[in-house]
Amino acid sequence: MSVSEVGEWKLIEAIWDVIERDPEEVMGANDDVVARRIGGNKLLVSHVDTLAWSTDVLPGMTPHSIGFKSVIMNVSDMAAKGVRPLGMLFSLGVPRNCEVKCIEEIAKGWRDAAAKYRLHVWGGDITEAPELMLTGAIMGITGEGKIMRRRGASEGDLVACIGTFGLTSVAYLMLLQGRAAPSKIVELKAKRAAYYPKAHLKEGMLLARTGAVTASMDCSDGLAWSLHTLCSLNNVGMVIKCIPMPPEVEAYAKAHGLDPIDLALYGGEEYSLIFTLKRSSLKSMPKSLVRKMYIMGEVTSDKKLRLLLDEEEKEIEKRGWEHLRR
Amino acid sequence: MSVSEVGEWKLIEAIWDVIERDPEEVMGANDDVVARRIGGNKLLVSHVDTLAWSTDVLPGMTPHSIGFKSVIMNVSDMAAKGVRPLGMLFSLGVPRNCEVKCIEEIAKGWRDAAAKYRLHVWGGDITEAPELMLTGAIMGITGEGKIMRRRGASEGDLVACIGTFGLTSVAYLMLLQGRAAPSKIVELKAKRAAYYPKAHLKEGMLLARTGAVTASMDCSDGLAWSLHTLCSLNNVGMVIKCIPMPPEVEAYAKAHGLDPIDLALYGGEEYSLIFTLKRSSLKSMPKSLVRKMYIMGEVTSDKKLRLLLDEEEKEIEKRGWEHLRR
Repeated sequence: MSVSEVGEWKLIEAIWDVIERDPEEVMGANDDVVARRIGGNKLLVSHVDTLAWSTDVLPGMTPHSIGFKSVIMNVSDMAAKGVRPLGMLFSLGVPRNCEVKCIEEIAKGWRDAAAKYRLHVWGGDITEAPELMLTGAIMGITGEGKIMRRRGASEGDLVACIGTFGLTSVAYLMLLQGRAAPSKIVELKAKRAAYYPKAHLKEGMLLARTGAVTASMDCSDGLAWSLHTLCSLNNVGMVIKCIPMPPEVEAYAKAHGLDPIDLALYGGEEYSLIFTLKRSSLKSMPKSLVRKMYIMGEVTSDKKLRLLLDEEEKEIEKRGWEHLRR
Repeated sequence: MSVSEVGEWKLIEAIWDVIERDPEEVMGANDDVVARRIGGNKLLVSHVDTLAWSTDVLPGMTPHSIGFKSVIMNVSDMAAKGVRPLGMLFSLGVPRNCEVKCIEEIAKGWRDAAAKYRLHVWGGDITEAPELMLTGAIMGITGEGKIMRRRGASEGDLVACIGTFGLTSVAYLMLLQGRAAPSKIVELKAKRAAYYPKAHLKEGMLLARTGAVTASMDCSDGLAWSLHTLCSLNNVGMVIKCIPMPPEVEAYAKAHGLDPIDLALYGGEEYSLIFTLKRSSLKSMPKSLVRKMYIMGEVTSDKKLRLLLDEEEKEIEKRGWEHLRR
């Protein structure tokens, strides 16, 4: 049977059936990062993510934005765990006919994203490859009690987020399906979100410090997919009553007769953070953080993931951006 | 200008011209690993290496041996620094039509190599790719004074190695050029060296503990290339008087009218360790280590890399296995 028949998740399961787990690894399977005890109550936190030319590069992306994004996608996973990244290694797969200029621009993207999030690109390796592939390995150190996990949500917790949803869906529709933006500002905002995404690192680190968060993950696989993942890992359900969206998403949806909620739910590569927290801890959270948070709903015990808007209830489907893109 | 015109080393230089160095990174450019201060006199040591289907997989390699080797090539760099690896992440690039069975076998290769070197595969990510690509990121922690570097050799130091040379050259000639082995045992030994290479981790860690080593690196780019690298990074020369080779290399060379020394010098993917050490420290080294070491020659001040065998002297060329393979 081929990997495309079983899909990514079954393939990961098949690998885990073979691999022996590290008893000193504290996150367990399917979290955003791995974290390994290194003594003195410290954890070595690490993560790898690959940006591949044929599946991840949108029309109009410059080499600089490719380099930039390849850092952001890794930083975002650390942000969701509240861990400050120290640095990254890159393994660069390069086709023979690739221009040196292109690689220099990618490196400038690395440099600029690294400077923005105060980490360093330490080095890496270069391999010949049939298409451009950028694999980033990101690392950081944190205290054992300080890391936020995907597991820990329970009934009655609030569901919240930092960052908004829908702009990358707009970008996909614009760039991959040629459905034009109704105005220059919508076009620019959507492209910016897709080409130069933002990782919410400072906010993630602040969140971890509050001790209020019961579960947390990044939304790179799309909001619907990520909410489903949190529900399934925690054996709970959720009622979502609010999804923060920039006005440009509604404008675009209106222009094309689409439901903006669908754009927000079934997008992807939007590095917003979703998390759950104890209701009682809300009042003691730093104001600067509360200002940036949106309360989206709450955790339920019934294992269903529902959207409740204007007294109308519907189920949130388990699908992500890949389905939108193909 | 394309990357194939400038080559890997110029490309790396171009990237370093752009990237800002981390002042807390202690190894400097062009070492086997990066090592970043993390407080308490500790270093976070990391390295990435990619195994790509079209450039690194030899005829006859099974998925199990591909997985195994993708661990070894990373472990070997840690061995050369004397650092115990804790674990690895893998980014797996998989073509759509790849069999699930193949990925399971690769994972078994990871498992077996990890068990052999007492580390863990912690996780990673999977991406669709035009060909199989395995990027491993390996990590470990060590004390700041304990790591062996490529820089530090000076005139009068001995040049030594752990492991032998030439068997992978034999394997390349057999497998890529169809030049048959003169006996079953030569064939088996060469294939074993190429399919299931050995990393000298225990020896590297012991070496680091002696404090006697002035410079050290692994030989994955071939013996000649690696010796040249050590000379150039240390601004010295070397006279090499002995190159340890298994008898099968000499048997193969004889059968094909080749110079066995050429096979040993200009091979590659042979994970032997080469290092320099103070002559005076030899007598205080543990016997178990001395038994495994070969003294190859000594460091000179004249910046020339020469081979002196049977009173005949010749220059060692700066070329590695890639030239042999293509």
